[in-house]
Amino acid sequence: MTTTLTRPSSETLLDLFRNTFRRHAGGVVVCTTVDDDGTPVGFTATSLASLSAVPPRATFNMIKSSSSFRAVQLGCRIAVNFLGAGSHELGQRFAGPAEERFAGDHWHEERGLPVIDDAGVVLFTKVASIYDHGENAIVVLEIQDGTLGDDQDPLLYHNRRFGTIAPVDPAR
Amino acid sequence: MTTTLTRPSSETLLDLFRNTFRRHAGGVVVCTTVDDDGTPVGFTATSLASLSAVPPRATFNMIKSSSSFRAVQLGCRIAVNFLGAGSHELGQRFAGPAEERFAGDHWHEERGLPVIDDAGVVLFTKVASIYDHGENAIVVLEIQDGTLGDDQDPLLYHNRRFGTIAPVDPAR
Repeated sequence: MTTTLTRPSSETLLDLFRNTFRRHAGGVVVCTTVDDDGTPVGFTATSLASLSAVPPRATFNMIKSSSSFRAVQLGCRIAVNFLGAGSHELGQRFAGPAEERFAGDHWHEERGLPVIDDAGVVLFTKVASIYDHGENAIVVLEIQDGTLGDDQDPLLYHNRRFGTIAPVDPAR
Repeated sequence: MTTTLTRPSSETLLDLFRNTFRRHAGGVVVCTTVDDDGTPVGFTATSLASLSAVPPRATFNMIKSSSSFRAVQLGCRIAVNFLGAGSHELGQRFAGPAEERFAGDHWHEERGLPVIDDAGVVLFTKVASIYDHGENAIVVLEIQDGTLGDDQDPLLYHNRRFGTIAPVDPAR
């Protein structure tokens, strides 16, 4: 490790940022909603985090240039679909071309929102706040209801690959 | 799964929230800083998420009643120490009694901040924004510099236990 008190260049900083968050693992959810004209919209998010238990709130971060961002508005309803380890193809699909995300029978409509059939948990939420950070935004969700399915090993994203949880080896 | 259009009670909602985020896995970091009088302060966070690459920013969420929160102020410097799978005892220690967190030789001072010796990555950051949500806050960090150590399997927290990453079984 090196220690320097000079500020790194923006290129060095970008490399550091990318390498750091490549190594940081996150749980995978698919956020789903509908556009103004009722068209299903959905996207994979790996930044979901709990914010508060009472009232029940969570956050995720997203880039505003995303095709899905126009559907994410203050007060709008969003379903958060927690993916299990077996659903890595869905995690990939909802990070791929927008026109392919809902092509198929892997989802259904529930309470007016598209919902992923195989999600381990579905939370029905409402956007409570959106904090603007230049090209990105922090979205705060208020959880209004939800359904807990069978307990599944979670789907994780790490080092540009999907993975799941394993015990820590106590011998390490 | 059941569908209901009535609002669940606050107890039901709290159970749903707890069960959901118990199942959601997160990467484990230790945030370290110093108090007004120079005393080291540190805490385990499982909500760290990237916000933007340019400028390099990340977020984490914390409860304001935490003993560490008084040290987290706008403009203050925080080191983010990313823990590897072998460092689960450190993840536990920095979630335990405050007086035991820095008791030992598992840390050193670097650029005026306490830094965890075995961290895979250390980011030197400055608090850019704090968004108040009742008893909780969203903290936005601007990354100013950092050091990338050896690539380690990440430490994760899931279902009240520490774990690490494993490949997804393609046969599922």
